[in-house]
Amino acid sequence: VCHSSLTATAVELGTYRHYMQKEIFEQPTAVANTLDAMANCRSLAPQIFGAQAERVLREADAVLIIACGTSYHAAMVARYWLESVAGIACNVEIASEYRYREPVSNPATLVVTVSQSGETADTLAALRYAKSRGHRASLCICNVPESSLVRASDLRFLTRAGPEIGVASTKAFTTQLVALALLAMTIAKLRSRLPEEHEQQLLHEMRQLPAAMQQVLELEPQIEHWAERLSALEHALFLGRGIHYPIAMEGALKLKEISYIHAEAYAAGELKHGPLALVNADMPVIAIAPNDALIEKLRSNLQEVHARGGELYVLADRDANVADSEGIHVIRMPQYAGFLSPILHTVPLQLLAYHAAVKRNNDVDKPRNLAKSVTVE
Amino acid sequence: VCHSSLTATAVELGTYRHYMQKEIFEQPTAVANTLDAMANCRSLAPQIFGAQAERVLREADAVLIIACGTSYHAAMVARYWLESVAGIACNVEIASEYRYREPVSNPATLVVTVSQSGETADTLAALRYAKSRGHRASLCICNVPESSLVRASDLRFLTRAGPEIGVASTKAFTTQLVALALLAMTIAKLRSRLPEEHEQQLLHEMRQLPAAMQQVLELEPQIEHWAERLSALEHALFLGRGIHYPIAMEGALKLKEISYIHAEAYAAGELKHGPLALVNADMPVIAIAPNDALIEKLRSNLQEVHARGGELYVLADRDANVADSEGIHVIRMPQYAGFLSPILHTVPLQLLAYHAAVKRNNDVDKPRNLAKSVTVE
Repeated sequence: VCHSSLTATAVELGTYRHYMQKEIFEQPTAVANTLDAMANCRSLAPQIFGAQAERVLREADAVLIIACGTSYHAAMVARYWLESVAGIACNVEIASEYRYREPVSNPATLVVTVSQSGETADTLAALRYAKSRGHRASLCICNVPESSLVRASDLRFLTRAGPEIGVASTKAFTTQLVALALLAMTIAKLRSRLPEEHEQQLLHEMRQLPAAMQQVLELEPQIEHWAERLSALEHALFLGRGIHYPIAMEGALKLKEISYIHAEAYAAGELKHGPLALVNADMPVIAIAPNDALIEKLRSNLQEVHARGGELYVLADRDANVADSEGIHVIRMPQYAGFLSPILHTVPLQLLAYHAAVKRNNDVDKPRNLAKSVTVE
Repeated sequence: VCHSSLTATAVELGTYRHYMQKEIFEQPTAVANTLDAMANCRSLAPQIFGAQAERVLREADAVLIIACGTSYHAAMVARYWLESVAGIACNVEIASEYRYREPVSNPATLVVTVSQSGETADTLAALRYAKSRGHRASLCICNVPESSLVRASDLRFLTRAGPEIGVASTKAFTTQLVALALLAMTIAKLRSRLPEEHEQQLLHEMRQLPAAMQQVLELEPQIEHWAERLSALEHALFLGRGIHYPIAMEGALKLKEISYIHAEAYAAGELKHGPLALVNADMPVIAIAPNDALIEKLRSNLQEVHARGGELYVLADRDANVADSEGIHVIRMPQYAGFLSPILHTVPLQLLAYHAAVKRNNDVDKPRNLAKSVTVE
C-alpha cells in the first residue's frame, strides 16, 4: 500500500473560491519554505543541489536549460541571472523543439531541466537526448520528490511549493524562480564572482521576498478592477524588456490558459517590427515596467501604443515616474526590487488572469482542453 | 547630386494590384538573381561573402545571428541549417534584447546581422555592442549596398531582391534565406562536412528553387479561398515544428501586419502547455506540415486541435498522407523539398496574408502604424 503524503488541509480551499487563488496567496509561504532548503545557513552552500554539486557546478563550462510551458519562462529568466550574476553562458530550449534538433553539444555544458511534476514527457525525453549527445552532468528543478526527472538527474533542487491543484501553474513558477536564482548565485560564488558583501546583500533580499510578495498581493482590489475591463475584450498584448520579457510571456500564457482571452507577449523592442499594426481600442496593452535601466526605452514603446489609440495598463514600480492619465492605467508596485524584480512582477499578472477568468465564469482550476501535467508527447 | 539607381520599371505595378503581390510573384526572379552571386560556379566559393571570407569563416568557432522582425525569423531558420549541415553552434538573438543583456561572449564567435535595409537601428547598435564585447568578426546579410550595416561589417552578402516597396517584407525574406543557406553550406564545406556529392546535390536543389517557387505561386486560387474564410475571423494560430517553426512565426507576423488579424505562432509541441485552451471555432489553426521526420508528431498535435472543434488549414507536401475532411482543409504543396522546404512553405503564407488583407480592404502596402525600415530605436 502506498500512502499519499498529502494532508487534508493541504488540499482544502479554506476561504478561497478556487485553488488557483489559494495557490497565488500561498506564494509567500511557498517561497519561504523553498528558501528553507538553505537551513538558515548564513551563506550559500552548493550542497543544496546535491552531495556532488560543488564539483559538478565547478566543472560546468556553460548551462543549457530545457523546459516546457511555464517552466520554460522560468528558464528564460534564469538565463539573465546566470549570465549577469554568474558570468556563465546559458542557452534555453523548448523541450519539444530541442529533442528533434541536431544541436552542437559541448559535453561540459550542465543540462538543467525544470518541471513542476518531474514527469513532463518532452522534458524527460529531451534530458535523455542531451545525455545521448554527450552532456556529462544534469540538474533538475522540480516540485515532486522521486519523480522521473529527479531520478534521471545527477543533481536536484526540490521546490517546496506544496501540491499545486490549479492547472495554471502559479506557486510552482515562483518557487522555480527562487531555485534558479539560488543556482545563479551559487555558480557565481564558485566562480569567485560573488564577493561576500554582495552575497549577503542578495541573501538578504531573498529573505525579504515573502514579505515583499505579501505587499504585492495586497494590490488585488486594483488588479480586479483591471480584470473587469480586460475580461470584456478578446485580445491583449503583454510587453516587457530584458529579464521582464519572459514575465510578460508568463502573464500572457496565464491569461490565455484560464480566461481564453487571446493574449500574446512581445519583447517591447519588436513592437515596431509588426505587432504595432494590431494596436487599437480592442487590443489593450499590459506593460511590465520596473524601474530598471530599460524604463526609458519602454516608455517610448508605450508612447507609440498610446499614440495609436491603445489602452495601456502599466505595472510600474513605486519609484518609477509613470503617471495615470487618459487611456493609461497605472498600478504602483512596491519600489524596484532589483535582482528579484521578475518574481514580484509575476504576482499581479497571476491575479489579473485569475480575476479575468472568474469574471468570464470559466472553470478556473480546470480550464478547457488542458491537463495539469503533460505526460504524453 | 545623388542619382537614384531605381529604374521606373522596378517600381511599376504592372498587372498587380499592390506592390506586395508583385513582390511575392517576383520571388523566383529575386532568388535566381541572388543565386547569381555564385556567378555560375560549379561549386561553392567562400569569396561570395567577401575577399577575407575563407579565413574569417574558417576561424569561426560558433555563429551568433542578430536581427529584428522578419529578419529574425530568417535567422531562426538559419540556426537549424548551421547546426545540422555545418555542425557549428549557433545562437540567434533579437537585436533590441541582445544589446541590453550581459551575454557571455566568445570572441571567436562570428557575428552575423540580417536586415533588409541595413539601417535597422537596433541591429546596428547590437553589432556595435557585440564588437565592444570582444567579437572579432562580423558578416552582414543585406539588400542594400553601402548601407550602414554593410559598411560596419567585415564580410557581407548582398541579396538581390531589388527594391521592396511593400512594408511587409516578402522577397527580402526569401532571399535572406537563400543567402543564409549558402552560408551554412559554405561553412560546412570549409569544415569538411560537405562531401562533393552532397554539395552538388544541394546546389542542384538551390538552382531548382525558382522553378519550385513558381509551382507554389500557382496555388494562389486555393489560398485565396482560405483567405476568404480566415478574413472573417479575428484570430489565428500558426503551428510548426523544427525548422518550420520560424516559418509559422513568419506566417503569423505577415497576417498580423497587413490583415490586423491577431495571429500567433507556436511550436506545435507547446500546444498542450497552454494555447490549446484558446482553440474553438473562432480560432482557426494553420499548420505547416512538410513531409519530414516530424510529420507524425505534428499529426497528433493536429488531432488535438480537431478534437476541440478547431478548424484546421494544413499546408502539406504532396507526398504527405494528410487528407481533406470535415473541418480539415488541405492544400497540397509540391513534394517535400528537403533542405529548402522552409523557403517554399513561406510563399503560401505570404499569399494568405495578402489576400486576407485585400478582402478586409486594408491598405496592404502601407499597413497602419508601421514603417518600412525601423531606423529609430
